[in-house]
Order: sequence, then C-alpha cells, then structure tokens
Amino acid sequence: MKVFVKNGTIVSAGEQYQGDICIEDGVISQIGKDLDILAKEGVQVVDAAGKYVLPGGVDVHTHMDLQAGASRAVDDFYDGTVAAACGGTTSIVDHMAFGPAGCPLHYQLNEYHGLADKKAVVDYGFHGTCQHVNSEILDELGDMVKDGVPSVKVYLTYDFKIDDDGVLQVLKRMKALGGVTAFHCENHAVVQFLRGKLVAEGKTAPIYHAKSRPNLAEAEAVRRVLYLARLAGDAPVYIVHLSCRESLEAVKEARREGQKNIFVETCIQYLVLTEDKYLQEDGLKYVMSPPLRTRKDCEALWMGIAKGDIQVVATDHCPFNYGNEKQLGKDDFTKCPNGAPGVEERISLMFSEGVMAGRITLEQMVQVVSANPARIYGLYPQKGSLQPGADGDLIILDPTRERVLTHDQMHSAVDYTAYEGMKVKGAIDRVLLRGNVIVKDNQFLGKAGDGSFIFRKPLSL
Amino acid sequence: MKVFVKNGTIVSAGEQYQGDICIEDGVISQIGKDLDILAKEGVQVVDAAGKYVLPGGVDVHTHMDLQAGASRAVDDFYDGTVAAACGGTTSIVDHMAFGPAGCPLHYQLNEYHGLADKKAVVDYGFHGTCQHVNSEILDELGDMVKDGVPSVKVYLTYDFKIDDDGVLQVLKRMKALGGVTAFHCENHAVVQFLRGKLVAEGKTAPIYHAKSRPNLAEAEAVRRVLYLARLAGDAPVYIVHLSCRESLEAVKEARREGQKNIFVETCIQYLVLTEDKYLQEDGLKYVMSPPLRTRKDCEALWMGIAKGDIQVVATDHCPFNYGNEKQLGKDDFTKCPNGAPGVEERISLMFSEGVMAGRITLEQMVQVVSANPARIYGLYPQKGSLQPGADGDLIILDPTRERVLTHDQMHSAVDYTAYEGMKVKGAIDRVLLRGNVIVKDNQFLGKAGDGSFIFRKPLSL
Amino acid sequence: MKVFVKNGTIVSAGEQYQGDICIEDGVISQIGKDLDILAKEGVQVVDAAGKYVLPGGVDVHTHMDLQAGASRAVDDFYDGTVAAACGGTTSIVDHMAFGPAGCPLHYQLNEYHGLADKKAVVDYGFHGTCQHVNSEILDELGDMVKDGVPSVKVYLTYDFKIDDDGVLQVLKRMKALGGVTAFHCENHAVVQFLRGKLVAEGKTAPIYHAKSRPNLAEAEAVRRVLYLARLAGDAPVYIVHLSCRESLEAVKEARREGQKNIFVETCIQYLVLTEDKYLQEDGLKYVMSPPLRTRKDCEALWMGIAKGDIQVVATDHCPFNYGNEKQLGKDDFTKCPNGAPGVEERISLMFSEGVMAGRITLEQMVQVVSANPARIYGLYPQKGSLQPGADGDLIILDPTRERVLTHDQMHSAVDYTAYEGMKVKGAIDRVLLRGNVIVKDNQFLGKAGDGSFIFRKPLSL
Amino acid sequence: MKVFVKNGTIVSAGEQYQGDICIEDGVISQIGKDLDILAKEGVQVVDAAGKYVLPGGVDVHTHMDLQAGASRAVDDFYDGTVAAACGGTTSIVDHMAFGPAGCPLHYQLNEYHGLADKKAVVDYGFHGTCQHVNSEILDELGDMVKDGVPSVKVYLTYDFKIDDDGVLQVLKRMKALGGVTAFHCENHAVVQFLRGKLVAEGKTAPIYHAKSRPNLAEAEAVRRVLYLARLAGDAPVYIVHLSCRESLEAVKEARREGQKNIFVETCIQYLVLTEDKYLQEDGLKYVMSPPLRTRKDCEALWMGIAKGDIQVVATDHCPFNYGNEKQLGKDDFTKCPNGAPGVEERISLMFSEGVMAGRITLEQMVQVVSANPARIYGLYPQKGSLQPGADGDLIILDPTRERVLTHDQMHSAVDYTAYEGMKVKGAIDRVLLRGNVIVKDNQFLGKAGDGSFIFRKPLSL
Repeated sequence: MKVFVKNGTIVSAGEQYQGDICIEDGVISQIGKDLDILAKEGVQVVDAAGKYVLPGGVDVHTHMDLQAGASRAVDDFYDGTVAAACGGTTSIVDHMAFGPAGCPLHYQLNEYHGLADKKAVVDYGFHGTCQHVNSEILDELGDMVKDGVPSVKVYLTYDFKIDDDGVLQVLKRMKALGGVTAFHCENHAVVQFLRGKLVAEGKTAPIYHAKSRPNLAEAEAVRRVLYLARLAGDAPVYIVHLSCRESLEAVKEARREGQKNIFVETCIQYLVLTEDKYLQEDGLKYVMSPPLRTRKDCEALWMGIAKGDIQVVATDHCPFNYGNEKQLGKDDFTKCPNGAPGVEERISLMFSEGVMAGRITLEQMVQVVSANPARIYGLYPQKGSLQPGADGDLIILDPTRERVLTHDQMHSAVDYTAYEGMKVKGAIDRVLLRGNVIVKDNQFLGKAGDGSFIFRKPLSL
Repeated sequence: MKVFVKNGTIVSAGEQYQGDICIEDGVISQIGKDLDILAKEGVQVVDAAGKYVLPGGVDVHTHMDLQAGASRAVDDFYDGTVAAACGGTTSIVDHMAFGPAGCPLHYQLNEYHGLADKKAVVDYGFHGTCQHVNSEILDELGDMVKDGVPSVKVYLTYDFKIDDDGVLQVLKRMKALGGVTAFHCENHAVVQFLRGKLVAEGKTAPIYHAKSRPNLAEAEAVRRVLYLARLAGDAPVYIVHLSCRESLEAVKEARREGQKNIFVETCIQYLVLTEDKYLQEDGLKYVMSPPLRTRKDCEALWMGIAKGDIQVVATDHCPFNYGNEKQLGKDDFTKCPNGAPGVEERISLMFSEGVMAGRITLEQMVQVVSANPARIYGLYPQKGSLQPGADGDLIILDPTRERVLTHDQMHSAVDYTAYEGMKVKGAIDRVLLRGNVIVKDNQFLGKAGDGSFIFRKPLSL
Repeated sequence: MKVFVKNGTIVSAGEQYQGDICIEDGVISQIGKDLDILAKEGVQVVDAAGKYVLPGGVDVHTHMDLQAGASRAVDDFYDGTVAAACGGTTSIVDHMAFGPAGCPLHYQLNEYHGLADKKAVVDYGFHGTCQHVNSEILDELGDMVKDGVPSVKVYLTYDFKIDDDGVLQVLKRMKALGGVTAFHCENHAVVQFLRGKLVAEGKTAPIYHAKSRPNLAEAEAVRRVLYLARLAGDAPVYIVHLSCRESLEAVKEARREGQKNIFVETCIQYLVLTEDKYLQEDGLKYVMSPPLRTRKDCEALWMGIAKGDIQVVATDHCPFNYGNEKQLGKDDFTKCPNGAPGVEERISLMFSEGVMAGRITLEQMVQVVSANPARIYGLYPQKGSLQPGADGDLIILDPTRERVLTHDQMHSAVDYTAYEGMKVKGAIDRVLLRGNVIVKDNQFLGKAGDGSFIFRKPLSL
Repeated sequence: MKVFVKNGTIVSAGEQYQGDICIEDGVISQIGKDLDILAKEGVQVVDAAGKYVLPGGVDVHTHMDLQAGASRAVDDFYDGTVAAACGGTTSIVDHMAFGPAGCPLHYQLNEYHGLADKKAVVDYGFHGTCQHVNSEILDELGDMVKDGVPSVKVYLTYDFKIDDDGVLQVLKRMKALGGVTAFHCENHAVVQFLRGKLVAEGKTAPIYHAKSRPNLAEAEAVRRVLYLARLAGDAPVYIVHLSCRESLEAVKEARREGQKNIFVETCIQYLVLTEDKYLQEDGLKYVMSPPLRTRKDCEALWMGIAKGDIQVVATDHCPFNYGNEKQLGKDDFTKCPNGAPGVEERISLMFSEGVMAGRITLEQMVQVVSANPARIYGLYPQKGSLQPGADGDLIILDPTRERVLTHDQMHSAVDYTAYEGMKVKGAIDRVLLRGNVIVKDNQFLGKAGDGSFIFRKPLSL
C-alpha cells in the first residue's frame, strides 16, 4: 500500500517547507518535491495543498478507564482513543490507576492490557504506577522495562504517596535501567493542612479547591524532587502537569546549576484556563490537581515552551460526568473526583492559542505535542517525527478554517468540554495512523482494535 | 556601685567613637566625653584607652551538660559558662537535650533550671525542644512563653524529627504567641540514604561524615521550612547553624519574594574551618552536623554577614573529649558523637578573621555576636546593647595584641580546641557582667551562680 | 552654654532608646539616663518626652541660587536654608551651577562662597562641577580637596556633558585624591533622539517630558558609569537622583560582582510622586530630570532603602516659580526650566511615607537622611550622628501630630509645593543647630549667616 | 543532472536519520529510503555510508582582500573561498572594508563585486559598512536592500566609530527595511585609555593587546547597543564576534526582559583558543579584536551555544602573514594588524571540540554553522538546509577519521594556521556545491568563478 500526501507544508521539529510525503506499508519512505514520478497503480493521493502536515500527536498523560476512589473515569480505551484520534493524537501513553495496596507493578499492567488491547484505536503504551517501595518493587521495575514500560509514576500526595527515602531508591534504580520516573508534585502536608483549615471554616465551594493547593505547595515538591534526582546522580526526572510559575523557576534554577535529565510537562488546561473558572456556577467541572492557576502562570508556561524550558504539553485526560460523578463535590470540594477531559482539544488549542496567537512557533508546537514526548518516553523515531522510516502518523491541518469548540462535536463519553464556546483558528482536516486515514472532517473512520501496543525503549543516557 | 569605663572606643551596633561609659548598679547610666565630672567616691575606674568597648557577647546556641545518646557533653553549666565568660560572652541561650519520648516541654525546662541555676557564671536562658507535636504540646508552648521561654527548636533529622505537618502546626502556634521556631535543617532521608550507601561501601572514615551530609541535604530542608513558614503567615523562622552557600541562596530568594520574619544563624566553625580537617589524623574532633564545608562556603557566609543576610553567629558549643567519647567513631563515623567546643573562641575569631581580615566591620561583628541574637530572642535591650538602661555587660578588647589559640589557655572541660595553633589578632582585656569585672587577662574572677536566668520576651510582630 | 534635651526617644543610626542628651558649647557631651544630676545654673532644658530625637538632616543635593539657562532658581542661600532648617535639615552640600565654558573649578567656588557666606542659616558645603576635562582641571581637583571640596559632579547629558574618556580620567584622579565623583546619569543621545521625535510629532505637553527620558536612558548611563568606575580601580562613584528600578538593578548587579565604592542617592520626589502628575493641568510644576516615574519604581526605591541598596535620600532642590519661569514650557516642555522644591518637605515625607507607612525603620531613615550622606561626603561624625563629640544638630519630632502640607506653611521663595494637600503623620517640633534652637513650631528663630562653611574631608579608602 | 547521496546519516537542524538525498539540477529534490528506485542513466552516486551528511557551511563573517590601514589581508576571493570550500563552507557573507571617508555605501559594494565576481569558488554575499550617518546614508540603506544587501555593519570603535545617536538612526532605518544591523562592540574610550596607559608604562608585548581590551569593554558596548535597539522598537541587532561571558550575560538579560530580534555570533577562535597564546613567542599571530579570552569564557560560550543563547559561529577570517605584516607589531602591539585566518578550520573544530567533545549536539552544530546564519541574513532556505528545494550544498563528514591540523594542509594564502598541531576527530570527505563535488579528500576540484553572488532577502519581522 502506498499513500502520497501532496503539496502540503511539511512541519518537522526543526523547519517547514512545501513538499510531498510518500508512505509505504504504513511507514514514511520519501519526502520531496513532485513525488508523482514515483506513482504507480493503486497509489492513494491525499491533497494537502494549503495545509500543514504535522507528525501525529503523542499524549503521554492520559487516564483511560481509571478507577479513582468511588468513581471511574468515563472514557474507556475505545471512547478515549476515538477522542484522541479526532483531536490529532495518534499515540497515547496511559498512566495506570492504583491497584490494591501492596500489589506488584504487573498487577495493573496485566489489567490494562486487557482494558486496551481490543479497544484502542490509536497506538498506546503504559506508565507503571509505584504505590510502595521495597526490594520486590525495585526488582520488578527491571521486568517492566523488559515488558516495554520504561517509566514509572510516583505520587508525592494522595494515599499512596512515596516519601523522600522511597523516591531516592526509585530514582536510583530507574537511572540504572535507563528509565524515566514521573512525579506528581504537591506537598501532601501542606494540602492537608489547608484543606482541613478551609473545611473547618466552612469554605467548601470549588474555589477553595484551588486555595487548598497553592503554587508553593507544588513548587516545594518540584524542587525537592529535583534535589533528590540530583543526589541520585542526575537520575532522569519527569515532572507531570507542572502548572505554575514558581515550579518552573525551580526547574530553571536546577538546570542553571548544571543538573541534567530533567523533563517538564505541562497540560493544555494550565495554558488556557484560569482559576476564575471555579467561581462559575459549574466550577466543579474544573476540579483537578493541581488546580487551575492565574493568567500570569499561564503566560509563564507559554514562555517556558517558547524558551525550551518545558518539553511536553499533555492533557491528564481524566473525565468525569458533570451531571453525575462531579456532583459528589457539590457541597464539599474535597468530595469531588479530580480530573477533566482534554485529549481531543489539546492540539487544536495549542495551534490556536499557541501558534496563531504568536506565543510559539509551529515547530515548537510539534516539539511539545509530538517529538519531545516521543523522545523522552522511548517512542522516537517511530513516533513524533516525519523522517523517512517513521510511522506514517500524520495530522493534516487547515490553518484557514475557524471553529467553535462545543461539546456536541466531541467524541469522548463525558458530558461536557472544559472549553465550551472557545473560538479556535485552524481545523484538523485529516488524521492518518500508519498511512490510513482514520479521521476526516471530524468523522472517525477507523475501528476498535486498530491501535497497537507500543513497546517503548529505555533512554540511552 | 558605680563604674567608669574610660576613654575606650565605644562600638555600638551602628557606629563607633571615643568616650566614657558610666555603669551604676549594674546598668549603663551615661555615655559621654569626660564623665569624670560625675566622679564621686567609690567609683571604680577601668581604663580602656586604645581599646574597643563592645557589648558583652550573646551566644544563643550552646549545649551545656547535654546528654546525646550514650555520651554526655563534657561542659556542665559551670565549666561551660566560665569558658563563655573568658571568651567575652556574658549571656547564653541553651538548647536543651531531648527528654524521654513523649515528655512535655517542661520536663526538660525543670531539669535544666536544676542544671544551671547554681552553676552558671553568666546570664542564661533556654530554648524549648519539640520532640513530637500534638494538642498538648501546642498548648504547652504558651506556658513556655509565660515561663520566659518564647522559642522552641524543631529538628528535621535525628530520631525526634518532625514532619512537614507538625512543622506547620508549630509555626502557626508560635506565630500566634510571638515566639520563634528554630530549625535544624537537614533532609533526613538524604542523610540516611547516603550514610547507608557509604557504610555499605566500607567508607567509614571521618571524611565520609561530610560526604553523607551534602550541602543540598541542608539547603533542601532550609527551603522547605521557609516555604512552610510562609504558608503559616510568615511565621518567625530561625535557621540554626546554616553552613553553606546553597542554603543562604534559599534564604535570599525567600526574602526577595517578600517573606518576612526569617532569621539566619551560622556558627563560627563554618566561617573558619573547612572539610579538609576530616582528612587529618584527628578528624573525629570535627565531627558535627552539619559538617564543615569548603572555603567557598566560608566566604559565602562571610559575605552573607557583610550584606546583612545572616543575622547571628553562634557556636553550637557541644564538646566531647577527643580522648574518650569521640573515639567511639574511630572505626565508623556514624558512631561518633556529634559536636565540638567553640563558646570561648567565637568572639576572638570573629574579631580576627572577620574584622581584622577586612571581611566585615566591627559594627557588623557587634550586630551578629550580640545585638541581633538579643533582639531575635527577646533579651534586647537588656543585653546586646550599650545604650543607657542596658545591663553593664562589656568586653574590653585590645586590637594591638596578638595571641595563638591553644588548648591550655581554654577554660572548657574538654581536652582540645578545634582551633589549636591559630594566630589571632586582638585579645580580650576584660569582661564585665552587670558592671563587675569577671574576667581579666584570661583569668576568671567570678564564681558559680553569678549568672541569672533571663526571662525572655516574645517578639512584637 | 549647656543644653539638656530630656526624655526623648533618641534615635541613632543603629538603635533607639529613651534618654537625655547634653550639649555643651554646641557639641554633644553626654547621653544617658537622668542627666539632671549634671545640672547647674544656666542650663537650658528642652523637653522631648514622647518625641523622637534625631540627628539633624543632611541634604547633599541642593541648587541654591542656581542660574540654569535663562532662568535662576528662586531660592537664594538665605531663603533656601531657612526652608531647609524648618524642614529639619541642618547641613546642605550644594551643587554649584555651570560657569562660563572653559572656566576653572574655582570660578564657581569663589562665586558660591560669595553667594552663601553671609546668608546661609544652616551649615553648608559645595560640590565641584566638572564642565570639561583636561590636565588643568585634573590638577585643580587636588586644590579643591585642599579647599574642603572633595567631590565633583559630572553630567552625562546637557551642554557640558562629559564623554567616557573624560569620565575615566576624572574617576582615576578623584580616586587618587580620596574624592567622590557624582554623576547625573542619562544617555544624552537617547534623550535628544526622543525629544526630537516627540516635538516633531507635536507632542509637547508635560507628559512627553517623561516619555523623552525613559528608565532605560538612565539605567544605561548608570551601568556605563559603574563599568568605567570599575575600570578605574573601583573608583568612588556616586549616582545622584537615581529614579527607577532598572538603574537600581544595575547597581545591585555591579555590587554582586564585587565592585566597591558605589554610592546611590535617590530624591524624595522619586519616592512619593509619580508621572501621572504630568497629566494634571499644572504638570509643568513637576518638570525635572530624571522625570517622575511609576508607582512600581517608587516601591522599588523604597525597597532599595530597606535593603541597604540606596544610601542617600536627597532633594535636588531647585525651585522655579510656576507663575513665572515654569510658564516658559507651557507650549513646549523642552523650554521649561528643570527642577522643583523639596528641601523643606524631605524629612516630613520620609517619616510619614517611609517610617509611619511601615516601609522602612526609623533607624533606616536616619541613615539615609543624615548619617550616610555625612559619611560619604566627609561631614561625619561632626554631622549625621548623635554620638558624644558630634555637633549638637538635632530634630525633635512629634510622631503623634498630623499635618497637611500646603504652600503657605513653607519658607522657600517659590510659589508652590509639589506636595500640596498631602497629609503627613508626624511634625517637627524643634530643630537645633549646634545646640541652638533655630526652629520651633515651624517658626524660624535664627538669622542670616548663622550657617558655617563645612570643610569636608576626603574618604579614607 | 542528478546526484544520489546514498546511505548517509542525514543531519538537519532538528534531527538525524539514515537515508538518501537526491539532487537534481543543483537542487535537492527528494529525501528518503532506497531512492535507487528513482535511478536512471547518468545518475552520479555518492556513497555516504557511515558518514554524516550536513548542509554546507555558511560563514557570515569573513574579510577577503581587506585593506586595513597599511596592510591588506592576504586572501583574495579566490584563495579565501578555496580555503572555505575545503573547510566545508559553501557560502560566505563578507564584511567589506572601509572606503574613503564620506563615501557612499555603494562605493565598496561596487568595488567588492569587482573583487569577487570572477574569483569566488563558493557562493557569496556582502554586508554594508557604515562609516558615517546622515540622511544620504540612511536613504542608501534602502538601495542596498534592493541590491541584495539587507545588512550593515556598525563599529563602536576604530576611526569610523559611530556614536549612540548614529546607532539609533541606523537601527530605526534598518528595522523599517527589515534589515539587520551588525555591531562590533567595544567601548572605544576604554580601549584608548588602557592602550595609552599600557604603552606609557612600556607594556607593548602581545599580551597587553588582550589587557587593553578587557571583557567589560566589550560587555558595556554590547549592553548599550542592546538598549539602543530596544529603544528603536526592538530593531534587529546582531552582535559580531561576541567573545566573553559578561557580554553573553548582557544578551541573556535583555532577552529575559522580553527584547526580541537579538542575534549573537561568536567565532571559532573564541571557543578554542585562550589568551595564553599571547605569551608564546609567536603571540602576534593571535592579535585580533576582541582578543582571545580565558578558558572560563570559552566554556561560557560553548554553554551559550548548547542553550540556544548564541545563534552563529563564524570566523572573522582576516589573515595577515606572520612573517610580514604581523611583524609590524613586534615592538608594539598597537602597530600589529588585527586578524587571523579561520575559514578553513571552523567546521572541523566545531565538530571535534563541540560535538565529539560532548559540548553540543550535531544538530546544534548544524544550527550555528549553517542554518541560523542563513536564516538571519536572508539566505534561507536556499542555503543552510537539506530540505527539498534547497541548493544541493552538502558536507560529507567521516566521524571515524582523525587528523592533525597543520599549515601545509591549508589552502589559504597566509603563512600559518592559528591551530597548528591540534588533533581533531572527524574529517571532511567531500563537499558539494549545488550538486557538484568541489572538494574530495582535501583536494579542491572546482574553479575560479564557480561561486555566485547571493541576492539576500530582508527579514519578515
């Protein structure tokens, strides 16, 4: 099978130019001018004239089918990946839920293979989830790498939080394995202290969710984790959903001091939404951790992308119905399940609010939504690149169209979008997965099980 | 009783000039030119011509008669305060030892009154020691203030370390009381991790004591405590024995961000000695926590004094005999009791290495060895000042003499000085406690019990 | 003659306390408690109970009787120093006007002795004014020092601006003499460029005066002068009327790099007034160079005082009548004579806006309005201190009174105050010059010629 | 004509991968895997297996055939560009010499077309040289842009230095034209002051050349120019041969403040050589301005490349024979013509000292030696890129070979290399200009006049 994507403006991580892309058997074989000379029978031609051709999106922070306390995220791997595909994301790496206390890492890996394998419509991988630290777990991290999972998530808050001692052990072990340790950074004691204080004062509205998790609670944890990673020999450390200016300063300072192997992710909501959402009647829709911050934080994060301080923009996609699960928090924000959808909106918002608004270049957008996450998490160059030899995962994006984001256009199972009514410049025309057009004009054309598990490689430090 | 100190160069916290000081009934009554006109019978005249007249030293970090694990610090309140007096220190505030697990704060306060009250030869106070945090302890902090102890020490390492949650509670309570919370800042997990690693590798010589407690282990804890204090409403926070450049940077950054009520102490050993001491045959003499650092750290600390970033220079005086207790560590640094003497050497070293070496001014020295510690801990203006109305505690210091520090000149019960053989410019000529000459030419002239308990006042924030 | 100032709160550069001051023959002889015991006949007692007793103010940047282009500043040395006295300032150091092109430095010195000597009512000195640089001028700087004028002013803008080469020569020479070189820092090319542009666009209202002299025009010049001073061996460099955040950053950076002998002055108007004054109908009143800045700059300057980055608050007192000279600019800001009054308002505003508003301590105020300018310019400890041996120059200030600043209370010859209608906390009760009460309740009690020329000393570097 | 470059590791500005490049009629037409399928008769195949394929080098700072005072640089456009070609540089942009005082910009442009047009063997462009500023010159800048020269050089030192006023006018005009103003930044007064001082002290050896042009003399000028560019509306400003840490700090600070359109060039000698060269017997070989600096500066510049703070590495190639012209300085460094060769050594040194030494990535090297200079100066994407549509200018580099740099291998007319005896990893195997192999194994295969004038485009701001 051969596909020609003709006359588009091809955008790689480093430059852009007009040209054609030829995909054979799902893999990019040539890039050039006037590839028609290669044409034979049976070639499918996709006209991209006047449009951008980008590598398919890579979202390395999703929570499909997640059980969180009493609630379950409403997107399973089918609905969630259809939403991803329609949003231009052709690969996800999912953060698996907590298992029973004391369970081995493979408990969830086995479960998640079962949840995803016949359902996913885009390619997918998993991150391990570290709930406790002992010699068995440290050993098992090696087996996870062998099973294509060279990354593990550590929480510094919530019930399964890991203390500094455990963090050091995991970092040391993961460094030896060439693996990446991802951290949810918030100071647990601070959050508990403030939640207790606020609830005691009767302050239970959604806005107090934000007040209970201040910027400094995050920045302190970020800085501490960076210190520990440095002590573990500049072990690879990946900060998930960094949301505020102070945390970014901590990262910049560590790098200025010469620390290597620091990777930073923010999520699209921290770039676009602000904490005044919590003052709206439907504030519960936006209850997530870390919470939304201020406009000043958003701009600091955009600047962080422009300057190369932030490597990845993901979503932390974890939707709960506003009409159902989210209502648990209607009298008390501490009861509201944390999370919001975003996997479908990410790339459209990055293009409109980032590129078209002049905050970042299109090449920078490609870096943070595709190339960098692929590199950091061992999917590159199969994913995240348009180089010959890479998978034929493409977004064809029309910069001249405009649309208004509304829930009825979305493909997630959830009952709202956090970006309802936002006007965006640009529209996704087509999405290709390994050479197949799986989305056209917001219609999903693929089928359950088209997605494959991606066996990810460790870093070569 | 009336004493005239004549013709000295009087040095206050802000300026210096030639003049006379008149002390009546232990209290400074006049300062001026040619106070002879006030002379009557019975006036004792102390000639200070060609010498500096400074407020008596205030050392707010000593450990007299301390039980530390199996070892007891060898200076009781008599020997220790004689050493203090001979070194120009006329007031101490002692950090009390840990009591039995779960004991109330007054357990030690009662014990320490007993240890000090008939023995001390200079005036003295105590800091509370917080071993655990619950509602009884939080209540009792208020009683401690009423009993003249408006400060409490919290350890972030060792057996009685307090976690972030406890720190927040203590800070909040102490702020309400106008009290100061003092912190020993080292990240416990980091130190344990490194000690385990080093011992497992057979690295048990004294130098590995230093390697097991790196600068970042301290700086991380300092920064975290500052964050917590900020969250507690800029609660007064006092960092004891800050020893390195990175910690000082954390302090400066917090202040730049506008945080108030941060007080910083370093100790004389961190200004004068460096970690190469651990490579000497008698390296165990210098085992203390934090450990000695590098020359670069020393210079950063001196600069910190010169710029006003550091408020206090104390000693952490806690001597163990090299010939006895210290030898517990001869095969394994982790077994060596931590601590070293310094209460007698502090002011001579500050004058020689600080003032005479051109690193700080004499006024700055007076600030950090007398005025500031007195202000922060509620002894001012009774102590730490030469203003009319203050206690007649004076050092008369001859800048023209030179001496070599040797153990045989020292008055502590311990069997060594950490500064053996150092040449210093300047010598203490006389020391006055409330108008009485208690030291002359390195001879102690006072007697046990001359010292009084100082009922300290809370801060007025 | 003997004067007792009784029961005041004495404020020195370093501390404050209740006590009495005894002045004999114009000089402070004793400070203490209950000095009545010294009382004999003929002692004049001044009751200061409930009031602060401060060293008399030292204003090192005034322009009395200044010829500036076609206009002459309206305060001669009598009116101007009466205003100073009533405002609590007992010493001034005046910046002399430009002389004819090519004139020696003594041309103005001779003229100014004539202008001041029978008229001034407070003590006074002069700064030299450098209009060109050649070997004669460099030689003559040595004679100026011998004549009690160890400081010279260099302008980087206006007709007599000195270029980088001249600046280097003056700095090198002044360093050798122990003298201080004071700089008016604005980039001439930038100002001319912007003035030309604005006038060409018809933008001639007072607000464009501010727009023609942006923060960066000042900061560039400050930074350049600091570089040149560093190249001249850390030659003493004094920045006059530093007015903005960016300039202060340049100073802080140079000091962080280790440069010594940098002194910074701001003026009271840059702390209290902002550029929106230029939008008022009477905007011409505020035309001065540098221009008024923003609130953000004001706060940065206050912070600079609190942190010790700024040493001096002066006035650049240079009044022109709004009803007369200032009207030259009514159609074109470039025609308006630059300058405004302030010598009388300075200390009241510093006390109210600085101390009472909680921005700085009273000790810090004493540093910047008295002690530091006296030290830098060779008047200390005769001036700027309350130590025994200093001149009996005192302000007795009542913190409990409030007043509204209005032109009719002022003593300057000019027809307005720039602070009309401002409420201030605190009022000056009495001012003493060398033991004589020269102001009481805003009434001037002295007479022309009471002021003496102060023979200033060079720095001892 | 069709050329296949087969199986190389293709390195673009953003990524690298194995593949083939097809060049048709001098222009890259396809990039892919196994392009043999396109083969027809007459295709020339270049085997690049095991080698890197890079875009041809772009050196935007050379001085061919330069008349400098009494001396003329010894490379004319033939010798100089043969050296360039052999060093992997396929495009140069030459800084034209000063013309007679008062001459128009086209005086030199006409002359340089004559010097280059039949001689150059690689493609070439010119920068204008601004010797004075008036309305004619400002007008003529527009004509230069129309003639393919959208850049002009301004000197802040030397005889034709431009003052701040002129700088502002040129920046403003060039911004309107979309042109780039390049600045030689050294403070003229400082350099003259120090030269005078050193010569007066008899310090005339080559090392004093370095001492007369300190880091701060450069950094001051850099910072000032950046300020002026900011005042001119963020006019595009290009700093040539930035050589030291302090200058780089000035650039970083300006960017942190939000200034846009700042471009920074360093030269290979400032990365590799240090000022101790001046202490060698042949120190005159290294007399250039700015002078060589310290190892610390070199490392700061390498870091600047790695972090993206420096955009371009050029050469300032300007050779004078050591045996002849350079000897003018043998008794007095101020008489020595300034300049050294480097156009041939640049890329080899960047690869060995930069990439192989682990200081930068190969992609970063491509950015600074090819892609960025092409972008900034309007040659992109014709030059500096391997994208389809670009000129077929390629370097094929063998990373496995090692060589020692010696003068006898070089092609410049000058009698030495500044890097004599340096071992380098990697060797240039072949160089292609528009599809033609012009260098093979250090043999030049082309002929005079093969190079074409490049009509450069303005920036689109």
